[in-house]
Amino acid sequence: MPWTLHCTTGCGYQAPGHQLASLCPQCAQPLAVAYDAAPARDALSDEWSLWRYAPALPIAPGEARVSLGEGMTPLVELPALARELGVHRLWVKDEGQNPTASFKARGLMMAVVRAKALGLPGVCVPTAGNAGIALAAYAAAAALPARIYAPRTTPPPILGSIRAFGVELELVDGHIGDAGKATMQFAKESGYFNVATVREPYRVEGMKTMGFELAEQLGWELPDAIIYPTGGGEGTIGIWKAINEMVAWGWLPSDVVKPRMIIAQAAGCAPLVRAFHAGEEKATPWENPVTHASGLRVPGPLGDRWTLRTLRESRGDAEAVDEDAIRAGTFTLASRSGIDAAPEGGCALAATAQLVKTGRLAPESTVVVFNTGSGASYRW
Amino acid sequence: MPWTLHCTTGCGYQAPGHQLASLCPQCAQPLAVAYDAAPARDALSDEWSLWRYAPALPIAPGEARVSLGEGMTPLVELPALARELGVHRLWVKDEGQNPTASFKARGLMMAVVRAKALGLPGVCVPTAGNAGIALAAYAAAAALPARIYAPRTTPPPILGSIRAFGVELELVDGHIGDAGKATMQFAKESGYFNVATVREPYRVEGMKTMGFELAEQLGWELPDAIIYPTGGGEGTIGIWKAINEMVAWGWLPSDVVKPRMIIAQAAGCAPLVRAFHAGEEKATPWENPVTHASGLRVPGPLGDRWTLRTLRESRGDAEAVDEDAIRAGTFTLASRSGIDAAPEGGCALAATAQLVKTGRLAPESTVVVFNTGSGASYRW
Repeated sequence: MPWTLHCTTGCGYQAPGHQLASLCPQCAQPLAVAYDAAPARDALSDEWSLWRYAPALPIAPGEARVSLGEGMTPLVELPALARELGVHRLWVKDEGQNPTASFKARGLMMAVVRAKALGLPGVCVPTAGNAGIALAAYAAAAALPARIYAPRTTPPPILGSIRAFGVELELVDGHIGDAGKATMQFAKESGYFNVATVREPYRVEGMKTMGFELAEQLGWELPDAIIYPTGGGEGTIGIWKAINEMVAWGWLPSDVVKPRMIIAQAAGCAPLVRAFHAGEEKATPWENPVTHASGLRVPGPLGDRWTLRTLRESRGDAEAVDEDAIRAGTFTLASRSGIDAAPEGGCALAATAQLVKTGRLAPESTVVVFNTGSGASYRW
Repeated sequence: MPWTLHCTTGCGYQAPGHQLASLCPQCAQPLAVAYDAAPARDALSDEWSLWRYAPALPIAPGEARVSLGEGMTPLVELPALARELGVHRLWVKDEGQNPTASFKARGLMMAVVRAKALGLPGVCVPTAGNAGIALAAYAAAAALPARIYAPRTTPPPILGSIRAFGVELELVDGHIGDAGKATMQFAKESGYFNVATVREPYRVEGMKTMGFELAEQLGWELPDAIIYPTGGGEGTIGIWKAINEMVAWGWLPSDVVKPRMIIAQAAGCAPLVRAFHAGEEKATPWENPVTHASGLRVPGPLGDRWTLRTLRESRGDAEAVDEDAIRAGTFTLASRSGIDAAPEGGCALAATAQLVKTGRLAPESTVVVFNTGSGASYRW
């Protein structure tokens, strides 16, 4: 295998790439994939999916790919909105055009590919929404058994989407944390691969392709700032990993100015924003999380340290947005761009406006805002 | 302008390409775009949208493009399902990954681009679903006023999607036909461009890019059969137009075997299937249309003659599928492929199985089935 696994805390733990990976056995923090050799940018293909970056993904020769056309999402420039917000240039990357209509497709595809390559009997995940749908779709594509644990209170259309793919769906009393416990218990008993956010190192590898794409779409240049609506953190983490890999591998000049990674959270569930501004290394779980942007309702993310480190390393920032501003941002984004914005994307746009107003984002900045899902998922 | 407009009946009517076009003034049938010069396949770009085919689209130098990343949808091969169905090879082209989650994005984008180029005050359309959402999105992207007419009984999430883009939405008592009449009246009064299916020639130009993509994805080769779930007919018509253009322009060898164009309709609303098997040139409107596949609930399509001619020219076929078989086909497609199949896609897959069983589709065939939208649009 052309990669190894490393603990993200720097504790020094390493494991061979072909080993089934979960958290670091020394510090119970996430592991990350490190490649033994630098893939060449010239080796990338012109495939119509994120598999164009295959040399930079954890797949060994002879292993089977799975693909539903994930990635290669559009980057839409919005000059009029840039002027109004007061930034130099503004683009929105619309992740709602992925399979199963969210950025989750990228990561769950990669996790399913590894589960298949490792010969595991199945995959399981706790979910309140998009991750469960994405895992169900990719398990179906790979003909791999899957079991999804969701709170009984999950909106019926989401449960319907999971069921549409013919996987096992277990409803759990309580919230996403209870679903997480049930998933862990089942994984232990069954040998199924638990692919909860950053509990394994492969989802982030799929997520990082957002960073590769962004650079390729901008002619192998980078924006000054990336605003990412953040729940579990894997999107933000993944993009930053990609940026560092691209510089390390010579895809980008070694003196390139890396973007500031900025997270947007809902004011009703902002554990990472709170921890960032308090200068903490980890987040304290948010009590009584409330937001209609369900992808942001993650009170105690396992990727908290990794995300906070990303913000510090990138001279980034973190901004909380209240519910009314999320709604207004969502309508502004959809009605001014034609992108079917999800509330998460609306949150990121609203955060951008707030950061400019408070002087924390310079008016000469070039800015990429991520819309992580489809607004249609919220209409029922 | 490098194109002219021709009546699709062969009545001989022609008009300059820069003229605002509706139906043929001589025979009230659809007009089509014919290009003055053959675009070269080498002139295509590697853009991440259907704009890679810009030289083959009705846009003149200096005119503004509008794009939300439409097109470049995945073509997923399903070897196991091919074996079970009894065909040589089977692919599904997943149009649910377009902006606003359906193939309608391609055509409405093109209509909006022409409306903008022609300096029209706005666009309007009657809809029971996906066309209205797509027009709303592209009107927002182009900053062009839009008014959508929908039956009052349209599912609330569809109305919500239209409203999300900030366009005008008018609810109409009655069915889609009543919405169509209201749209015509409004267009006459306002000068807004009525972009109802095949009432203008540009939507088909967007739709035809499905044919270009299919050929490009198959290495500039063609399948033996294309199964398209058909309501208004513009998808089927567009793909066949693309195939003929590719041959005429030398993108494909002149002796290439063109695919059989096969339409799938719901048994509860199958005017084109009935007309095709009766050997008619046009369809009689279906009385009491009933199907849960709402994109197929088009009882009296204006593109009936053009669609029927396409089937005859391509040695094609037409198959009706009952509601239970549509449901079973939808579940089979989603659970075996990971594609979030809409009932329309399920109908096309079920039709394929029926055609093989009845000996009307040869077992050695290579087959492409279209999934025209997302199953998620049906869950609420």
